[in-house]
Amino acid sequence: MGEGFLITFQPSGVRGRAKGGETVLDVARRLGEGLSANCGGHGVCGNCRIQPAHGSMSPVTREELALLTPAELADGTRLACATRPASDASVYIPEQSRPPLQYVVEGGKSRPFDVAPEIINCYLELAEPGHDEHLSDAGRLLEGIESGYGLTGLPKTGVTLHALKGISGALREGGWKVTAAVRRGEVIRVLPGYAPGLYGAAFDVGTTTVAGYLCDLTTGEVAATDAAANPQSAFGDDVLSRITHASAADGAVRLRDAITGCLNAMLGKMAASAGIGAQDIVEAVVAGNTVMQHLLMGLPVAALGAYPFTPAVKGGMSVPAPDTGLGIYPGGYLVTLPVIGGFVGADHTAALLAAGPRPGEGVTLLVDVGTNGELAIGDGHRLITASCATGPAFEGAQLRHGMRAAPGAIERVVIDPESLEASYRVIGKQGWFRAGAKTGARGICGSGVVDAVARMYMAGILDPSGAFVRGLDNQRVRYDGPDGPEYVIALADETASGRDVTVTAGDVRAVQLAKAALLAGAEVLMAEFGVTRVDRIVLAGAFGNYIDAGNAMAIGMLPPCPADRVYPVGNAAGEGAKAALLSRAMMEEAGRIAKSARYVELSLYPGFNERFMAAIGFPVV
Amino acid sequence: MGEGFLITFQPSGVRGRAKGGETVLDVARRLGEGLSANCGGHGVCGNCRIQPAHGSMSPVTREELALLTPAELADGTRLACATRPASDASVYIPEQSRPPLQYVVEGGKSRPFDVAPEIINCYLELAEPGHDEHLSDAGRLLEGIESGYGLTGLPKTGVTLHALKGISGALREGGWKVTAAVRRGEVIRVLPGYAPGLYGAAFDVGTTTVAGYLCDLTTGEVAATDAAANPQSAFGDDVLSRITHASAADGAVRLRDAITGCLNAMLGKMAASAGIGAQDIVEAVVAGNTVMQHLLMGLPVAALGAYPFTPAVKGGMSVPAPDTGLGIYPGGYLVTLPVIGGFVGADHTAALLAAGPRPGEGVTLLVDVGTNGELAIGDGHRLITASCATGPAFEGAQLRHGMRAAPGAIERVVIDPESLEASYRVIGKQGWFRAGAKTGARGICGSGVVDAVARMYMAGILDPSGAFVRGLDNQRVRYDGPDGPEYVIALADETASGRDVTVTAGDVRAVQLAKAALLAGAEVLMAEFGVTRVDRIVLAGAFGNYIDAGNAMAIGMLPPCPADRVYPVGNAAGEGAKAALLSRAMMEEAGRIAKSARYVELSLYPGFNERFMAAIGFPVV
Repeated sequence: MGEGFLITFQPSGVRGRAKGGETVLDVARRLGEGLSANCGGHGVCGNCRIQPAHGSMSPVTREELALLTPAELADGTRLACATRPASDASVYIPEQSRPPLQYVVEGGKSRPFDVAPEIINCYLELAEPGHDEHLSDAGRLLEGIESGYGLTGLPKTGVTLHALKGISGALREGGWKVTAAVRRGEVIRVLPGYAPGLYGAAFDVGTTTVAGYLCDLTTGEVAATDAAANPQSAFGDDVLSRITHASAADGAVRLRDAITGCLNAMLGKMAASAGIGAQDIVEAVVAGNTVMQHLLMGLPVAALGAYPFTPAVKGGMSVPAPDTGLGIYPGGYLVTLPVIGGFVGADHTAALLAAGPRPGEGVTLLVDVGTNGELAIGDGHRLITASCATGPAFEGAQLRHGMRAAPGAIERVVIDPESLEASYRVIGKQGWFRAGAKTGARGICGSGVVDAVARMYMAGILDPSGAFVRGLDNQRVRYDGPDGPEYVIALADETASGRDVTVTAGDVRAVQLAKAALLAGAEVLMAEFGVTRVDRIVLAGAFGNYIDAGNAMAIGMLPPCPADRVYPVGNAAGEGAKAALLSRAMMEEAGRIAKSARYVELSLYPGFNERFMAAIGFPVV
Repeated sequence: MGEGFLITFQPSGVRGRAKGGETVLDVARRLGEGLSANCGGHGVCGNCRIQPAHGSMSPVTREELALLTPAELADGTRLACATRPASDASVYIPEQSRPPLQYVVEGGKSRPFDVAPEIINCYLELAEPGHDEHLSDAGRLLEGIESGYGLTGLPKTGVTLHALKGISGALREGGWKVTAAVRRGEVIRVLPGYAPGLYGAAFDVGTTTVAGYLCDLTTGEVAATDAAANPQSAFGDDVLSRITHASAADGAVRLRDAITGCLNAMLGKMAASAGIGAQDIVEAVVAGNTVMQHLLMGLPVAALGAYPFTPAVKGGMSVPAPDTGLGIYPGGYLVTLPVIGGFVGADHTAALLAAGPRPGEGVTLLVDVGTNGELAIGDGHRLITASCATGPAFEGAQLRHGMRAAPGAIERVVIDPESLEASYRVIGKQGWFRAGAKTGARGICGSGVVDAVARMYMAGILDPSGAFVRGLDNQRVRYDGPDGPEYVIALADETASGRDVTVTAGDVRAVQLAKAALLAGAEVLMAEFGVTRVDRIVLAGAFGNYIDAGNAMAIGMLPPCPADRVYPVGNAAGEGAKAALLSRAMMEEAGRIAKSARYVELSLYPGFNERFMAAIGFPVV
């Protein structure tokens, strides 16, 4: 026998000896064995439940009687912080007592990371001020954090002014027991007693849509989500029209108020649904495109509207919430992720963080199609990005019968090559429809028009240049539509409006221009990267999630790649923002991504226009 | 001959060779020869005027023609940044071209320090954004600062949100020439073109009086000063009554608004008198006692009102100006100096910074008498401080005819030991007055009452216990005054009120209690320090400046010390605040002082009450 009792942790098998007086929690910590203890081992939170399997332990304490259920007490469950071994012993750590180790981000592959955000809670039981020392309240708190949580190197003051305003009251109200939230080495909040609630919000602020996530920073769990239309759309559909509006009197202020109001409404909704107050939210991480982030932070955007599209700042910012108008805990912070360059903004940084190229997976092309198209190519070592003006076709806008991907939108189309009859699916309805069904279709969205164009080409309605083949004698193909030739997907009696839903020659042209921009951009990135093919394609963004990869390939929207190596990953930007909120390491990784990524300005790239022109037609199989 | 022409600088005699293409400024910098260049050597500020004495120089440039007067051009004056040696040469650097090296703080001895504040101006001439790089405006600015001023290690963003809001406009308006103010590694202000104005304010915030200094941060010069009564006095005369008032509804807010309004009014006055805008002031340094600083920062003061008098924070704070209501440049900061402990506040830290004990001067006792009395003893290595409740007698308050040291106050008194007749001086009048002169005296202030009590004792009117000697037959000594025995300094027909100005037995008692508290405190510090005498006494504060050291010694207010080793230094706290504003090193020194000073709580000190009782009487010579 060594110096103390031998403890074996299960199921890990990790073992070590307890030194004099050590609790099971102490031993677990020393050995690096994962065991939760939100209160820091003060017998308050009840997180560190264990099940001793062999050996004997110290008697059950008052804290354990208070925190464990009768059933738990009966089956021998203990709190590791209150239990000392009385012999060699084996201790089982149930899954729920383990710290939140991993959180999975969607992507081509799932990506694990430790939940270890920039903000942590420290529960402290401090000594009352005595006669022979003259610590300030802040000094006492910082000493407790240093000795209890090993957070050394806190700056001289170490407590923000906002937290200082509440510190004296919290210490005395809590009887010198408080919970301090520590962020980047500073105490930002002090609450009396054991107050574990600590939440953060992550936002993907798009030109058109805003997605929000409310997360419990102590567990990494998503407590609520929300999505909303960006109310700035009232001032213009795309970033350039927002920039123009910002130059008008009060324009920038109105744009800022619009997005701040939207974020605050989402925060309120999510907090209510999670049963917390907006004051429990101590940090918000925002990933948006460069213009969205500038407008939100009140930064000038004029220089982003003209070549060379210079942002005021590219690095991530961390700004006190009240300076941004964000209605979270007033001592909290709004953090933006770093921008890569030009129109490749923090949303793309976030998408790369969640679903970007990683070592060992070959060469990955990430395509993020929103109101703008962002591209990245990489292999986990090198990373090159570009932005291309796809136009709004992929979002269903500015098409003859185009609409957003909302209920009533035709989202999938197939065309029978013999009869040229269409079958289609409608968002909000079940199943496939054929001619004559009352589908209530209201229009066609991005994924639907890509399907339609691809199938029109495959069915011989379009030629490789994208022109309507002349002389087809079929009621579905009209050569005398109001905008020239068109293909009828849904007949008037099937639709909600009582009018045909068609794809016109102009719509086909819009899809061709959009896909040519994407493909030419991808080809430039491949050339710059020095490859002629990619091993994987990751499709990010809502559009990417719904598109049919085969059809996209058929019209030459993406470079050749086996269909089973095309991964739709949904809102990768939102997932990345969430990851940065929940993990300091991921936040740092975002900085590395933005710094290391090379940005290629396509509009200046030699030969880009030739590639673009060559990419307008369809591949001849 | 070596590699280049040999340059000899006068009057220093420093010499070295100019490398290829170097200007005289380049050579001076490389050799560490002091030569001003606020614009960083861009030929804009005209600071670096030199007078070549021997040898030949490159031709006069356009910049020099623009910046030098015809007389200067005629006598050969040049700008060092625009001049290259054309032979071995000797160059005279006139005094006004030297950087502000030293600034003298009043004190027992003057104390030099380099003017090198936390905030400096960097004038930059940047390249316009080009085609092949994608720097943000912030990145371009930070690159310029790093390469032009060698300020490396700026944090990732390096530009505050406030400065970012103006950066894009300033760069373009200034044609890529801007002046950036850098503070603690962050750019806090960006102005177009060469904009050298950079000011700071220092405040000594006392319970009764506020003193302010407006300083040019580029030269260290004091541009304006101001003093005002602390308007919080309307809510109570001393810190305890302020603490009581703060506990009432809105009390803390009203106290805060009062002092913020006072500081803003002073800032406005000083800025107007210096011909600048309040927006040119980028930092304010405040030294106040602990309660004043807590109220100003909006921190709770309740815990300062009762034993153990715990402050919320002792360390110095640095807070964005808008968070404090201070009307300076909104991207600027309010900085507080650190507190030592208990009632020994940042004002005492500042006083110690300006006039505290230093190595090689023996043991110094620093006495700072305001509404409270603060004491420090040290030898430049160890430092012990204490605070004692002197009461308001030394400020002329709560005496029968007491008043502040204002026009009309009797400030000096002598009493003829034979006739017991008084002679006195009145603030605002010239010369000494005797009985019958129409002096318009309105009352007696602190220095006057100390004089009066000392002279009454020396003249045999008071006995060593402080009691009036009975049976003196003199019209100046009345035994039947309204408050018992009293001595008449000014007769009714001499005064402004038409009533006698007297010193009563109660006034004598108040002086005795006040001086006993000071002396007992000084004795405790001497005992703790391990000495029985001190080598020097420094008297800080307005009262200390006017007191007669001999009389103070005669009544036993100070421990024995040769009168020529007692140094009145005026408002040392204000001088210290100014030094911290003007010098980063002094700011750091303030932190070291506050950290290293040991604080003794006199009310708990064994034997303090006995010493206090023993110190009430007068020394028997």
